[in-house]
Amino acid sequence: MATSSAASIVFYDIPSKLPIICWSPNLWKIRYALNFKGIPYTTVWVEYPDVEAQCKELGGAPTTTKPDGSGRPHYTLPMIYDQSTGAVVTDSMNIVTYLDATYPSLPRLMSPNTAGLQHAFDAAANALMTPIYPYILPGAYKILNPSSAEYFGRTRKAKWGKPLEELTPRGAADEIEWKKLKDGFGKIDQWIRVNGDGGKGKYLMGETISYADMWIGSFVQWDDVKTWHEGRWAGLLKDLEMYETV
Amino acid sequence: MATSSAASIVFYDIPSKLPIICWSPNLWKIRYALNFKGIPYTTVWVEYPDVEAQCKELGGAPTTTKPDGSGRPHYTLPMIYDQSTGAVVTDSMNIVTYLDATYPSLPRLMSPNTAGLQHAFDAAANALMTPIYPYILPGAYKILNPSSAEYFGRTRKAKWGKPLEELTPRGAADEIEWKKLKDGFGKIDQWIRVNGDGGKGKYLMGETISYADMWIGSFVQWDDVKTWHEGRWAGLLKDLEMYETV
Repeated sequence: MATSSAASIVFYDIPSKLPIICWSPNLWKIRYALNFKGIPYTTVWVEYPDVEAQCKELGGAPTTTKPDGSGRPHYTLPMIYDQSTGAVVTDSMNIVTYLDATYPSLPRLMSPNTAGLQHAFDAAANALMTPIYPYILPGAYKILNPSSAEYFGRTRKAKWGKPLEELTPRGAADEIEWKKLKDGFGKIDQWIRVNGDGGKGKYLMGETISYADMWIGSFVQWDDVKTWHEGRWAGLLKDLEMYETV
Repeated sequence: MATSSAASIVFYDIPSKLPIICWSPNLWKIRYALNFKGIPYTTVWVEYPDVEAQCKELGGAPTTTKPDGSGRPHYTLPMIYDQSTGAVVTDSMNIVTYLDATYPSLPRLMSPNTAGLQHAFDAAANALMTPIYPYILPGAYKILNPSSAEYFGRTRKAKWGKPLEELTPRGAADEIEWKKLKDGFGKIDQWIRVNGDGGKGKYLMGETISYADMWIGSFVQWDDVKTWHEGRWAGLLKDLEMYETV
């Protein structure tokens, strides 16, 4: 336990103008994870245009290639710097794997021998959440600080082929896309139901919250979504509330 | 144990002209699963044109809608009929969930509280295996019995927009698609490596074979694939050998 309590992690997150500052689902996952494990950490807020320099300065690895098709390395947050080991880790699945491996006596994000399946969940859930971005991105754009907003608007316009203001589906397209999103949550609802010997489990690992629940909880942002599947997602957010400290 | 040993399941599979008869990856999954649990079963071989009538006769549920876009129900194998409970189950994930729930004292395909994540694995692995079909289907076509071959050739041509003989990528396309397939297996290799506390695990659940290993093992059909990832897939097939009884 000496190691655990001495641990101090620096968590790199992207700020917003919201009172709570933290806004990105992909960064909420890691914040939930850090709070869940109970590792002391501090947040360094990094605006979008500064992410690459911040990662390079610490030696954080790129997580993908640039969306411009150039094949050049692309640097993204989340990133953590563990002051007690010197490790710098990028990519959310790498980060949670690192946290469990380095601090195994703290609560497990992924119980032993389920990390591989949690990675599979990450891949499958990413595919199911595809329809959510045209709903998330325009809202995010409005709450970012000016330098991030400029970067975000420009790069997302290049990626999606239209300004963020025009991205959210309207009318019939809205009905279709929102239904697709609901079906995606519905699939995860079904996965939860097959657990817990007769469907009594509330979470993706049955009775116990694991990283997969934090993953999906990070994407529950609308009152409508909270009511889906007999209020499962409102209930999940409530159960995650104690890990929401920013 | 009385219930278990009294269990007798009828397993509906599609035959081939091969000496071993069983050939379809999606049906191998369930054959592995039945052998792994050690439930006594008999196989009823059903040619493709007879699948729908066979499912309807027993009351097996359709698993999807017809690929012709008509929205009409589509019936597929695997299907099982459990003579000791009267249950008829279609869809591979439904079948393995049923087997574990009904025969919990027999070896678990999915350890308690990981069924949900195994479902996520099924979804993610299905996506990763997309490139394999243009390689599998033409070979399958050649080994089917005449009535299935006619049905298979006709329906797959409609779905893929070209005759099965022309489906397998050639030249540069072959290199690209085969690499995509290798990357798919590579992703699953990575998931296995994050398990077992320091990567010592050999399987998707670490030290223990689970349904996810049978799933991916069912798709290892070429000597080239067996050599990938330090021979992991050849090793997996060897470990699954004892569950190959047809």
